[in-house]
Amino acid sequence: MTAAAMRTMYKSHPDHPPYGEAMSRCVDTCFTCLEACSTCADACLSERSVATLINCIRLNLDCADACAATGRIVTRANKAGNRQPLEAQLTTCIAFCRACARECANHADMHKHCRVCMEACNACAAACEAMLNALRMPA
Amino acid sequence: MTAAAMRTMYKSHPDHPPYGEAMSRCVDTCFTCLEACSTCADACLSERSVATLINCIRLNLDCADACAATGRIVTRANKAGNRQPLEAQLTTCIAFCRACARECANHADMHKHCRVCMEACNACAAACEAMLNALRMPA
Amino acid sequence: MTAAAMRTMYKSHPDHPPYGEAMSRCVDTCFTCLEACSTCADACLSERSVATLINCIRLNLDCADACAATGRIVTRANKAGNRQPLEAQLTTCIAFCRACARECANHADMHKHCRVCMEACNACAAACEAMLNALRMPA
Amino acid sequence: MTAAAMRTMYKSHPDHPPYGEAMSRCVDTCFTCLEACSTCADACLSERSVATLINCIRLNLDCADACAATGRIVTRANKAGNRQPLEAQLTTCIAFCRACARECANHADMHKHCRVCMEACNACAAACEAMLNALRMPA
Repeated sequence: MTAAAMRTMYKSHPDHPPYGEAMSRCVDTCFTCLEACSTCADACLSERSVATLINCIRLNLDCADACAATGRIVTRANKAGNRQPLEAQLTTCIAFCRACARECANHADMHKHCRVCMEACNACAAACEAMLNALRMPA
Repeated sequence: MTAAAMRTMYKSHPDHPPYGEAMSRCVDTCFTCLEACSTCADACLSERSVATLINCIRLNLDCADACAATGRIVTRANKAGNRQPLEAQLTTCIAFCRACARECANHADMHKHCRVCMEACNACAAACEAMLNALRMPA
Repeated sequence: MTAAAMRTMYKSHPDHPPYGEAMSRCVDTCFTCLEACSTCADACLSERSVATLINCIRLNLDCADACAATGRIVTRANKAGNRQPLEAQLTTCIAFCRACARECANHADMHKHCRVCMEACNACAAACEAMLNALRMPA
Repeated sequence: MTAAAMRTMYKSHPDHPPYGEAMSRCVDTCFTCLEACSTCADACLSERSVATLINCIRLNLDCADACAATGRIVTRANKAGNRQPLEAQLTTCIAFCRACARECANHADMHKHCRVCMEACNACAAACEAMLNALRMPA
């Protein structure tokens, strides 16, 4: 299953959203970030220093839930309606990604999983911003 | 499993959040709203007039995803940190609940599932607002 | 939003499933168990003895995900089709609830949140079994 | 965020699971399948022939929920314990992927989104089977 195949899927949607490219990138990075956050939480739970990583685990789990919801909601972003809650969702996702990236940055030198998770969070925040911009562009 | 039992659970959390009552009500109504939205979407899919309910189904699914994420995230709202993304999440959930309630209101006379869903969405929006207020109160 | 209101929702579904009562109880307990497991995981993260609760946290998170999926899938269980994956989902949910209840039982004397979570898991396993039985009854 | 970066993440997990490769592929394809199923459901809702696609939409939504849970649960599959519910989860996911692929196959000539979704479901079923095999191999 290649990224190109997924891209043809968005193109075959009857609504032909003008921001299909931003949409498909946004969904991809949300689910990658969900995977990174969930994996980082589990790796943190296995670290000897788990007691110092509690805040990181909580933010990983929060960010995973926010990204899971955002990814699913953005797959339904074809219609112009309901713009306001959609924009609120993207803004919220950016807030969780940034908070989680900031926390993971504190442990990135020590734990590679925190470093990769930080990168996934930053990429997801950027893709949600690009989606927000695409939504606001005149069609 | 009574509501009282769940309430003792929140009280046994080592952090003893001062807003435990608002928190537990918020989580309860988020998951009830998830159930109502998911059930309403499925009932709409079985209506003969499904073609007139497409927007309702999409909002049901969006609201279900927003409520699922909010419910899970609020169970981790014990610590004072990360207040900003948490408030953003609650605000987003309110936006989806209101949009879904508005759409369901259009079909409430015709379909009882839309009426009950509208009530669940309104109750969830109110509980999320109460949680926001509780968070902002001085401890 | 009363349980009675939710019950009328299931009754207003155009498919009138003969097992609506079992279905609505199953969905309710799945979402209550999701709440209990998510809350127990967060409470465990705040315990001083967190290092001894890692396995419990992992099972809490697994059981929460299994219950979330089961609750959503059972809201779409009206049609007779696709019986086999639906039964597999219920069986899987029972397996996670039992594993999580067993682990929580080890800490139930020490931590009230583990005791309540164990009860929620046992109630969810029972409701999933009742749903399985209802599906297998001749209509 | 490259696939190679995600792969280093799994390698940095303190438990060093011997089946890390199968695990990471399984999680990736679960989330790709979640995206495909969610997108296909939304595209079906926009088709003029929506009334003939109701069963497809329901299976898309069911499969999306099963894949979301499986992806998250498999990120915690590092420890040897709890093998039985994990295997049940993978088996259930395979059942939903196959049912959804079969239904999408009926519409694959007409709708490209159904064809891509069918491919994503088949890839996910295969990756879940590979994960099951990896779990059963002597370490």
